[in-house]
Amino acid sequence: MRIENKLAEMGLTLPPPIKVPSGVKLPFSFVRVHGSIAYVSGHGPQQADGSVAGPFGKVGAEISVEQGYDLAKAVALSMLGSLQRELGDLDRVSAWLRLFGMVNCAPDFAQQPAVINGCSDLILALYGAEAGAHARSAVGMASLPFNMAVEIEATVAID
Amino acid sequence: MRIENKLAEMGLTLPPPIKVPSGVKLPFSFVRVHGSIAYVSGHGPQQADGSVAGPFGKVGAEISVEQGYDLAKAVALSMLGSLQRELGDLDRVSAWLRLFGMVNCAPDFAQQPAVINGCSDLILALYGAEAGAHARSAVGMASLPFNMAVEIEATVAID
Amino acid sequence: MRIENKLAEMGLTLPPPIKVPSGVKLPFSFVRVHGSIAYVSGHGPQQADGSVAGPFGKVGAEISVEQGYDLAKAVALSMLGSLQRELGDLDRVSAWLRLFGMVNCAPDFAQQPAVINGCSDLILALYGAEAGAHARSAVGMASLPFNMAVEIEATVAID
Repeated sequence: MRIENKLAEMGLTLPPPIKVPSGVKLPFSFVRVHGSIAYVSGHGPQQADGSVAGPFGKVGAEISVEQGYDLAKAVALSMLGSLQRELGDLDRVSAWLRLFGMVNCAPDFAQQPAVINGCSDLILALYGAEAGAHARSAVGMASLPFNMAVEIEATVAID
Repeated sequence: MRIENKLAEMGLTLPPPIKVPSGVKLPFSFVRVHGSIAYVSGHGPQQADGSVAGPFGKVGAEISVEQGYDLAKAVALSMLGSLQRELGDLDRVSAWLRLFGMVNCAPDFAQQPAVINGCSDLILALYGAEAGAHARSAVGMASLPFNMAVEIEATVAID
Repeated sequence: MRIENKLAEMGLTLPPPIKVPSGVKLPFSFVRVHGSIAYVSGHGPQQADGSVAGPFGKVGAEISVEQGYDLAKAVALSMLGSLQRELGDLDRVSAWLRLFGMVNCAPDFAQQPAVINGCSDLILALYGAEAGAHARSAVGMASLPFNMAVEIEATVAID
């Protein structure tokens, strides 16, 4: 439980399963394991009770790059929460492979990398430069579910 | 041919290969198999003759969530048509792994999951909760080819 | 070095590692290898010195489809440059599997395939119809980093 210990040392806690507004159906798996690969669904930032966390809206308009960075870090915690529930132990993630970082933003916003770094930096701090290394895209979406500002999906290798 | 039989029972038919407007070149594979993984290209909804199906435009503007749901279901049939032609038998899909659901929508639209559920629900109805389970993102695009309202790409495991 | 020879015959050169504006941090791997799969990060077009290449802006507005095609071809060269540095020899790419082509475009632009063909056509010319075949999506983004017009990520199989 090396990763769980590091999270505790950093004062970070993983959110519980997502609590969606009534009427919303999400008929998919947050983590889908096949062989030694786990496909991680698009996750958003969560509050401590599991509900979707704001601030909501578009980065570059009502949300700053700094707030976007913090939201992307929160998304990393959401993904780690889902992986923890699926795998039992976050040390079973042997390599991060791919992050696809989606930023809800205005058409003239061009700093998506600075936002998604909030996720990449935490993954690298927790897993180190070898297991934490990942390919990445950080791009601008027209809109995201629940008007979330950031959503990230991932692919990881597991033991 | 368990899946083909279920489709027939549900009164659903798979569309033929896509018929694109003259002058449009699509120099890629609709399904790319490597080992036990098949990468499924972004597909849109098709009419019975193979041409791209409307209604066209943006969900949340000229297209309703309900219409978007039906279009996402049609996209599932397009993907299944391509998989059937590539694999010969849809029972060879042993596990759905990932859906990436793209909704052409207005910047303030936030119900992408309710749209892409049209695809997820059909995959789960056909393949069941185990083989049909999949990771998923459902997000908002600035625009899509042919002004389609919904496009979905996928990754599946095959026997 | 079959592919490198073909590039030379075609008069094409691969750009050096990306040179980003000061203050920009990209804490990820441009190519992430796991087993026989290489995940290729989202790449943009590059100038000969490695910096991001214009023209910048949105296809369908200030950038034409023809310019977009050329930019997508330049993105293919950027990806090949990263693969060359990671793998040592581009012949080690045994199969292209997936291209995800992202076009920075106006909300009414609908010719994303004609843009991303610039990448697909070069990959097919270099690798041939068998190894070069790939699944693909070509879609419209609200915006891209550095206001690039085209960004593409990829998955390839390697020896």
